[in-house]
Amino acid sequence: MAIITLTTDFGVKDYFVSSIKGAILKELPEVTIIDISHHISPYDISEAAYIIRNSYDDFPTGTIHIIGVNSLSTPDQRPICAKINGHYFICSDNGILSLICQNHQPEEIFEITINPESLDSLFPEKAIFVPVACHIARGGLPTLVGQKRKKIKILNELKPNYRDERILTGYVIYIDRFGNVITNITRKYFEEIANGREYNIVLRQKDYSMTDVDVIFDHYHGIVQDFSKETHAMAKTLCLFNSAGFLEVTLYKSNPEITGAANKLMGLKKGDTITIEFKN
Amino acid sequence: MAIITLTTDFGVKDYFVSSIKGAILKELPEVTIIDISHHISPYDISEAAYIIRNSYDDFPTGTIHIIGVNSLSTPDQRPICAKINGHYFICSDNGILSLICQNHQPEEIFEITINPESLDSLFPEKAIFVPVACHIARGGLPTLVGQKRKKIKILNELKPNYRDERILTGYVIYIDRFGNVITNITRKYFEEIANGREYNIVLRQKDYSMTDVDVIFDHYHGIVQDFSKETHAMAKTLCLFNSAGFLEVTLYKSNPEITGAANKLMGLKKGDTITIEFKN
Amino acid sequence: MAIITLTTDFGVKDYFVSSIKGAILKELPEVTIIDISHHISPYDISEAAYIIRNSYDDFPTGTIHIIGVNSLSTPDQRPICAKINGHYFICSDNGILSLICQNHQPEEIFEITINPESLDSLFPEKAIFVPVACHIARGGLPTLVGQKRKKIKILNELKPNYRDERILTGYVIYIDRFGNVITNITRKYFEEIANGREYNIVLRQKDYSMTDVDVIFDHYHGIVQDFSKETHAMAKTLCLFNSAGFLEVTLYKSNPEITGAANKLMGLKKGDTITIEFKN
Repeated sequence: MAIITLTTDFGVKDYFVSSIKGAILKELPEVTIIDISHHISPYDISEAAYIIRNSYDDFPTGTIHIIGVNSLSTPDQRPICAKINGHYFICSDNGILSLICQNHQPEEIFEITINPESLDSLFPEKAIFVPVACHIARGGLPTLVGQKRKKIKILNELKPNYRDERILTGYVIYIDRFGNVITNITRKYFEEIANGREYNIVLRQKDYSMTDVDVIFDHYHGIVQDFSKETHAMAKTLCLFNSAGFLEVTLYKSNPEITGAANKLMGLKKGDTITIEFKN
Repeated sequence: MAIITLTTDFGVKDYFVSSIKGAILKELPEVTIIDISHHISPYDISEAAYIIRNSYDDFPTGTIHIIGVNSLSTPDQRPICAKINGHYFICSDNGILSLICQNHQPEEIFEITINPESLDSLFPEKAIFVPVACHIARGGLPTLVGQKRKKIKILNELKPNYRDERILTGYVIYIDRFGNVITNITRKYFEEIANGREYNIVLRQKDYSMTDVDVIFDHYHGIVQDFSKETHAMAKTLCLFNSAGFLEVTLYKSNPEITGAANKLMGLKKGDTITIEFKN
Repeated sequence: MAIITLTTDFGVKDYFVSSIKGAILKELPEVTIIDISHHISPYDISEAAYIIRNSYDDFPTGTIHIIGVNSLSTPDQRPICAKINGHYFICSDNGILSLICQNHQPEEIFEITINPESLDSLFPEKAIFVPVACHIARGGLPTLVGQKRKKIKILNELKPNYRDERILTGYVIYIDRFGNVITNITRKYFEEIANGREYNIVLRQKDYSMTDVDVIFDHYHGIVQDFSKETHAMAKTLCLFNSAGFLEVTLYKSNPEITGAANKLMGLKKGDTITIEFKN
């Protein structure tokens, strides 16, 4: 039976998420519904995109992903259903799909027009997205949900900046539950530019002292081995490429509630810059 | 296979919710379990009722709803199982069912007496509600779980007050994740009283300035069209009838963590009043 | 079909939990996945153990429990799969299993070696635990996942201390969502020591006044009967044996957000002591 995932900024206290689930089960009692996240910061499609692009592909091909973030239908952003990388996405054409699927061309895009009066709904996730998701889950043809389109709205995220053959600047794109600071510098991009050179990652602490980090770990295993030689290992600032492939600044085994976390210690928040200086 | 929903004030960190789910799956491995909400404010049956009454009917007829809010069995409030509007509710007779099903007479009500020693349980959701839910889910007769009753406990919520053919006062019944302030004034009731007249909704801001709102939007679409003409549209105070049909005060696209939300800006909390003055 | 439970300290905003679920469903689309808790305090295996040991046995025999708390593989703590009390646990050998299964000898223990290159993964829950869980869920032999071991790592928790045949000291092991303070004194241990004697439970309030409690309730029912005789019953400090069998200090029907809760009122936190003085 089909799998439908849900990502919204609704939280899980209110009735919205369970209304969506009830409406799905009313049509398809045997479908599997999985929550990706309901804790997206309100209207934040770049945060939603970061979370979805790092998990959607773990689901089986053919999974249907409903995205309810900034999804009211307006003349500028219509509800769409797109097939990308073997997965179906049902969401508003607000640019989020271009952030999720940066390396894949959409296979098919449909603007959802099957039920015109539902376009004014205050709850488009239930009124528009659920019927389309159930149609696809039943094996229905996407062509029936609306009219074919060639393009989705493209949003351009900030890219890392490289200048003077020496300075690489990236941006903080996400801060996770542990207070880890995740940048938009991928391992692949970093390694191309580094080309084997030594480097310093310059991190300003909140007290204006600077920390220089000159190694990016590949895995925590290496960290643990390295740390067993040191005394005050538990609160050391570290850089590593995380499991999603992005450069991440972290405090080894910090508990955000007790020892503080990387984001707090360095006063870093979404959109801030991280600079790497390469040596010749 | 049957669907069982859960609503509690247990939160999702502790072991209570998963104990209930495990106990259900031990009896019925194939049942579908859906969380409505576990973030009800402790013991707050009116909040639970608001959430459940806006989502239960989205589920298929025959769905079984377990409600674990203020559900310890005492001589004054016994565990009951009731069929209302085609759905089964298993909960304490603490008045919550009268709030959920205001427009429907119960079809059947049973006081649960099947397992008298479980009445003293500290965890009645698991000891009492789960076995009854599984019995119903298996297609068992409700008559076997206890003795038939004619009535449930009735709680009377505050109703909106209308006086002098001019002043309508409603109460805040819920504040959602976005800080939207939801009142007990329904669209239907409002339109009967307004009868086409103009009106002012008087909203006190926290700084004691007043905002007058003279239009209630039908949908966000209208808001967006209206707003495209204005400059500082993003933090404007708005009124609309929400997807559940209640008058709601909101800030357009506000992020509670950044720009503040309607409840904070106006210092509104549950139980506060909202006044509408009609013109002749 | 098999049941797999998940317990992690990942929270539910980030992509980690849904990545794990997707990876499971990719192998086994029909499996049932249940969240025990994803809100464990970071790295806190004793908290995770308290939650799991009070709920795992509610699930059917043969359920597979994935535990993703402090689970990076290091030379000192390897991933293991153990069968205990009829349930499968897949986790790091960091001592947590000894806390969960204090009264049961493991039936089988395997160190997971099936996929050596995955040991360095930054995301061992997905790279190591999921394939093993799916192997077991399909009915595969545990012997195929690694090499048999005789022992798991044993952690010794603080035990209650009894001295002078008069003073029993216990420790706070958990504080739940309601602010209830749960100690490591079990009903069984208490009753052996009390042996029918009277006692005082000495609770320091935050304002340095002391409260003496001389009765431990068996169930809330008794509390309610007792309280109906009193006037200011709603904020009274109470002791009872909770549904998991541990001595718990609580405020009757307190809402942590409004009236404060037991932990705040008494300034109690995890690791603090509670003293019981027995009379002759």
